[in-house]
Amino acid sequence: MHIDILTVLPDLLTSPFEHSIMKRAQDKGLLTVKVHQLRQWAVNEYGQIDDYQYGGGAGMVMMCEPLANAIEQLSKERAYDEIIYLTPDGERLNQKTANSLSLKNNLLMICGHYKGIDERIRQQYVTKEISIGDYVLSGGELAAAVLVDSIGRLLPGVLGDETSALTDSFQDNLLAPPVYTRPVDFRGIKVPDVLMSGDHKKIDTWRYEQSVQRTKDRRPDLLEE
Amino acid sequence: MHIDILTVLPDLLTSPFEHSIMKRAQDKGLLTVKVHQLRQWAVNEYGQIDDYQYGGGAGMVMMCEPLANAIEQLSKERAYDEIIYLTPDGERLNQKTANSLSLKNNLLMICGHYKGIDERIRQQYVTKEISIGDYVLSGGELAAAVLVDSIGRLLPGVLGDETSALTDSFQDNLLAPPVYTRPVDFRGIKVPDVLMSGDHKKIDTWRYEQSVQRTKDRRPDLLEE
Repeated sequence: MHIDILTVLPDLLTSPFEHSIMKRAQDKGLLTVKVHQLRQWAVNEYGQIDDYQYGGGAGMVMMCEPLANAIEQLSKERAYDEIIYLTPDGERLNQKTANSLSLKNNLLMICGHYKGIDERIRQQYVTKEISIGDYVLSGGELAAAVLVDSIGRLLPGVLGDETSALTDSFQDNLLAPPVYTRPVDFRGIKVPDVLMSGDHKKIDTWRYEQSVQRTKDRRPDLLEE
Repeated sequence: MHIDILTVLPDLLTSPFEHSIMKRAQDKGLLTVKVHQLRQWAVNEYGQIDDYQYGGGAGMVMMCEPLANAIEQLSKERAYDEIIYLTPDGERLNQKTANSLSLKNNLLMICGHYKGIDERIRQQYVTKEISIGDYVLSGGELAAAVLVDSIGRLLPGVLGDETSALTDSFQDNLLAPPVYTRPVDFRGIKVPDVLMSGDHKKIDTWRYEQSVQRTKDRRPDLLEE
């Protein structure tokens, strides 16, 4: 999979892709992520990519031309399955969307900044608008990093143990059960006996019941889907 | 505000806090963020902080002792308003929670990794469990970065224009209206006339109607809250 990211703050995205699982995905050649400085496509020699909004009000708006030119140039190099704009009013990211995007070959992600991008770019170029949650961030950069991570870890061969992602929260609309490791007794609080029983059928049943109970307690909405 | 972050991957969090609005918040002395390597509190000289999970299955679990020792040592230095564990089965982050956390003085955030942290730490130390959305990430680091950003930009004096955050999506359970900037005519598609009318009352009405319509179309659930 190849992912291009358009941003005015490429440096912000340096460290998240250089470590841990995202690094491993890239080292193995399973994922390439390229972060592009939008100012390469600025409208003038001052690197301008934003301007005041029509109608007045606080906050700058990212202009049409730099984005349009960037998208068109990058689209000549590869056919994007989706051109994604990260925005709080987009479709909320969930595991199902991450699963589905992990099957694509080429993605372009646009990071908004300030008050967002000119509406006309959204109408003309963007094929998918994604929000990582119901809150506002300084810009779309961290949202793009989150989206890349949620997709990248699902690519076959990225996680060390293939079964690991399948038992994560949300893969079956259930939250994950509680987990425990050594010591058995931590300051008087013990690991549940069943987990040390060696009876795998019993352990599976307990985990399933815990998952269902936790989902009922915390996220009953997931059970209704 | 002071935020401590406990992680096994401190380097992953280098760049997100060194740029843009998070940098400005720190430069102005309005926010300090300190990222702590959890391995300082490892159980042995090999820096071990995780172990196999009881009951078997894929994925390691972060051990009690390193986390307990880290939390206790850091808690001696300051009184935390909340000890937050970032986890997909936590309470979903929204703008209301971000607003409320932005009024606190000291926060400690714990980034999980692998299969998560031992349940006993959650029961004994964690005061708030937060999920940034219904998807799974490689670890809690990006979730912590998102949480810090969502909170940090709300601190008074951080955003250049104080009114800017108030007109963001979600602050009034409405999505933001579309925004436009120059040129008026972008390849044949024009900015709505009303925005160039100079009539501020009309513009406000149009924006409000657009917000309501967009919310109805995309997120009718927000209007029911």
